[in-house]
Amino acid sequence: TIEHLFKEIFKAAKELQEDDHRKTLLVSRKKKPNDTVVDIGGIEVGNGNQQFVMGPCSVESHQQVDAVASVIKQKGIQLLRGGAFKPRTSPYDFQGLGMEGLKILRDVGDRHGLKVVSEIVNPRDIEPAHEYLDVIQIGARNMQNFELLKEAGKSNRPILLKRGLAATINEFMNAAEYIISQGNGQIILCERGIRTYETSTRNTLDITAVPVLKKETHLPVMVDVTHSTGRRDLLLPAAKAALAIGADGIMAEVHPDPATALSDSQQQMDIDTFNHFMDELQAFYKMDAKV
Amino acid sequence: TIEHLFKEIFKAAKELQEDDHRKTLLVSRKKKPNDTVVDIGGIEVGNGNQQFVMGPCSVESHQQVDAVASVIKQKGIQLLRGGAFKPRTSPYDFQGLGMEGLKILRDVGDRHGLKVVSEIVNPRDIEPAHEYLDVIQIGARNMQNFELLKEAGKSNRPILLKRGLAATINEFMNAAEYIISQGNGQIILCERGIRTYETSTRNTLDITAVPVLKKETHLPVMVDVTHSTGRRDLLLPAAKAALAIGADGIMAEVHPDPATALSDSQQQMDIDTFNHFMDELQAFYKMDAKV
Amino acid sequence: TIEHLFKEIFKAAKELQEDDHRKTLLVSRKKKPNDTVVDIGGIEVGNGNQQFVMGPCSVESHQQVDAVASVIKQKGIQLLRGGAFKPRTSPYDFQGLGMEGLKILRDVGDRHGLKVVSEIVNPRDIEPAHEYLDVIQIGARNMQNFELLKEAGKSNRPILLKRGLAATINEFMNAAEYIISQGNGQIILCERGIRTYETSTRNTLDITAVPVLKKETHLPVMVDVTHSTGRRDLLLPAAKAALAIGADGIMAEVHPDPATALSDSQQQMDIDTFNHFMDELQAFYKMDAKV
Amino acid sequence: TIEHLFKEIFKAAKELQEDDHRKTLLVSRKKKPNDTVVDIGGIEVGNGNQQFVMGPCSVESHQQVDAVASVIKQKGIQLLRGGAFKPRTSPYDFQGLGMEGLKILRDVGDRHGLKVVSEIVNPRDIEPAHEYLDVIQIGARNMQNFELLKEAGKSNRPILLKRGLAATINEFMNAAEYIISQGNGQIILCERGIRTYETSTRNTLDITAVPVLKKETHLPVMVDVTHSTGRRDLLLPAAKAALAIGADGIMAEVHPDPATALSDSQQQMDIDTFNHFMDELQAFYKMDAKV
Repeated sequence: TIEHLFKEIFKAAKELQEDDHRKTLLVSRKKKPNDTVVDIGGIEVGNGNQQFVMGPCSVESHQQVDAVASVIKQKGIQLLRGGAFKPRTSPYDFQGLGMEGLKILRDVGDRHGLKVVSEIVNPRDIEPAHEYLDVIQIGARNMQNFELLKEAGKSNRPILLKRGLAATINEFMNAAEYIISQGNGQIILCERGIRTYETSTRNTLDITAVPVLKKETHLPVMVDVTHSTGRRDLLLPAAKAALAIGADGIMAEVHPDPATALSDSQQQMDIDTFNHFMDELQAFYKMDAKV
Repeated sequence: TIEHLFKEIFKAAKELQEDDHRKTLLVSRKKKPNDTVVDIGGIEVGNGNQQFVMGPCSVESHQQVDAVASVIKQKGIQLLRGGAFKPRTSPYDFQGLGMEGLKILRDVGDRHGLKVVSEIVNPRDIEPAHEYLDVIQIGARNMQNFELLKEAGKSNRPILLKRGLAATINEFMNAAEYIISQGNGQIILCERGIRTYETSTRNTLDITAVPVLKKETHLPVMVDVTHSTGRRDLLLPAAKAALAIGADGIMAEVHPDPATALSDSQQQMDIDTFNHFMDELQAFYKMDAKV
Repeated sequence: TIEHLFKEIFKAAKELQEDDHRKTLLVSRKKKPNDTVVDIGGIEVGNGNQQFVMGPCSVESHQQVDAVASVIKQKGIQLLRGGAFKPRTSPYDFQGLGMEGLKILRDVGDRHGLKVVSEIVNPRDIEPAHEYLDVIQIGARNMQNFELLKEAGKSNRPILLKRGLAATINEFMNAAEYIISQGNGQIILCERGIRTYETSTRNTLDITAVPVLKKETHLPVMVDVTHSTGRRDLLLPAAKAALAIGADGIMAEVHPDPATALSDSQQQMDIDTFNHFMDELQAFYKMDAKV
Repeated sequence: TIEHLFKEIFKAAKELQEDDHRKTLLVSRKKKPNDTVVDIGGIEVGNGNQQFVMGPCSVESHQQVDAVASVIKQKGIQLLRGGAFKPRTSPYDFQGLGMEGLKILRDVGDRHGLKVVSEIVNPRDIEPAHEYLDVIQIGARNMQNFELLKEAGKSNRPILLKRGLAATINEFMNAAEYIISQGNGQIILCERGIRTYETSTRNTLDITAVPVLKKETHLPVMVDVTHSTGRRDLLLPAAKAALAIGADGIMAEVHPDPATALSDSQQQMDIDTFNHFMDELQAFYKMDAKV
């Protein structure tokens, strides 16, 4: 009918507007066709070479972080991670060492020539964290903590933004838009598994989110194999899949003695497992790189 | 085998500990068998009578809130809601009037003798909000914003805590535990739908979460019918189901002119719909109450 | 742009077609505005009075079914259920008594004046089952077993069609369309919980599916409280919610001695629990019915 | 307490039994440590080399299948797929050519020296299909059609079993157990994406299901990149990830003219896309194979 057709034309006009809106998303590849390369004090993420972000789940002591730092350094890794502010399901679980933890990370990082990455969970801590961190991480539970995102957008540090536990790709992109719209375009997206009905893994690694995000946005995309799988035996296969599908980097947890770890003891790699992990991955990666 | 049996005995001992841990959750009914009644300046939630929390999605103007307040007052409702700090998916959507919005709520609430409820999203705003709010709401996206929860735990105002979009019952209880463990036990839990594959509703109302939460905890449980369904035509049936299953209250959005609303225009009730909603519900509720 | 607008006009035309297609769904209320009342040998489902379908998960023996039949009869229930062909996750679990089970059901039903309902899982068994059954059930796992649906569509027995474990409302309606398009319009839809990430219940009861289905289709809608919750303690609250939201009936499992049941021992009611369940529900129901 | 400990010891004993039960699953690697190699008339699946199963979504005509067969043959592919019995959401969508479709497949397969794979949906069609098919496929919607599985278990043809839309790994393994327990151990498992809340892809490819299944069972595991992603632009990246993580083969749909296809027109590859897909994949695969 004519009436319906008119209605549809209006609807089409509205969709055009929405499409325009989407085109104006600053994170969109439609807005900026070429890849964003994130520069972490000279270390580049998103330039075609793949980076590794490794370290313990929680910063527990100077000695513990140092032990990890020296082994990852030996494998040529340049980015050290460690949690100081820990978002834990229960208030009675270890909540992290806080600013003291960031200091440890900084000291160890400087000693080994590693750049350091850690999560900040309170908007008021973003500013003071600049003294210690090279990259500020926004965790999965805070992906839609918009006050934290706005504060991160005012920072001059690169932001590593993790996908929320049940966030859509569209919500993830808009979370990044909160940061970039405040002026900070140095953003690394990180797929870390989504919540589904399946229980054989801690979360379900949404591997095709990597090419989808690289197509929709100009930002680099990493994969956190530890939290997506939650299983030590799946870290290596998941990392291979992530590199093969085009991820710009891999994030994983390493601990000198996982059994005594104050958090996530089931899923961190010990030193031997880590060495094997990197050897296998670098062999795989080199072959792939030649194609 | 003997070896296995020993392993299992250790495992059982570990489970005993976990069970004990759970028993010591302050929100658990095992810890406190009788119902918590939340007292909002004389208005009780959880005493067996069902309460309604109604108002616009966003506070837009004094006039708009006043128009809603006068109609809900006429229906005997005692709790007025309105969003001043709005967590929106896109940074380009209306973000709310902020503190100015809280002032409007307070003024209108005082004028009509209504207690007021509004969401706070930044830990630093909890303290200043005490001047304006009778109940502080923690929204679904912030259910695991643990810094905000800790700050809410230090408040002397009742907290209305919404379930996260993809939070388990266990995570929901632990989020409440973050509040109560800081000293504030005046907590209302609110089921507001969970994220599933189904698209005919905005979220899937997990109706049996109400009896599960009332069994596991001693806290009152409300149901937000607006965000769980996202459909104006389902508000009334969902509210009936919620009352029938034992919810301590219903939350829904009302706007004088939903079509021009600055947020959630598809799901707010207009005045006529609201009046019909309450008439039907009060008839249903009275019958039920006599049983 | 003009080009885009033309594209949109074509798109609109395509959507018009789809809309037309939907209008022509035989199960759609757009096609047939008034409620379908399913007639089970004189027992009506969907006429405004609510029906109960009760009985053991599996037919185990004549004596067992008889014990259940006599107690449900005493409560005024007219429809007896019992599984003879059991779709079990493991091939090593009890698979049901098959045709022998249907005979037991028929005998017991006749003796007590109850109509009988049972699931058929193989297309070739639909025809022979006519000798024993008043209603043929298609289970959740077979909701998209299209060969079975087509065969059910050729039957002159009413069909009780359960929603698939992860079926959308749209898929559910189309499954019913497979039956009605073969000529059999005597269909009862049954919501039985959907699969989500939440583990405190066996499935998540999608309670608003009831009003959605009653709006979209002209078919009666029941709620299976046993499989949606999987918990004996939630059967009564779930049933109240289902009646309050407008379900045309309730389905639940009763067993003389659940602990020794050959299937689903955790979720069936024993006789005492059943009597309490019906007393509470009938009190609730009568009050509600007067409104 | 002592009482609790006794309870736990009984529980442990029960778990021991369950564990034993699991150990006795015939598909379990605990039962048979070495890999099962499925032999399709001389073509091996699961021997370390990766196989490709390609062809149109639906068999539409002899000419159409022939066009696809000749191009896949040129790329060295040995397995041709095509749907003759199509499980479609709507009864008004194209339901496939049935037995006539199987004949076309057989003819074309013989002409080009390709083994043929097609889905059977009714238990009674398994037997007659032996005349035409080298591999019988059980589709996602029928993964828990236990009557069909039992019939497949009596066949002497290899079975390609797809994971259900919302099936757990455990349910998937038990579905395979239905087949093997009837005597047919020639089973290929196929991950094809699971249903989640995310809408940017048709389903969510559960990539880590591949190593999980290969660890838990001794069966070969393929990945269907067409149905998991539902997007032509993601087929190649998804296939690379699948090969990298250890899949024994890739399944994808190819059509001479996807725009006019009678089903799944949005996701099938045309000939040029297919040639590019295979060239890229074979380059990637060769590099990988050398490691």
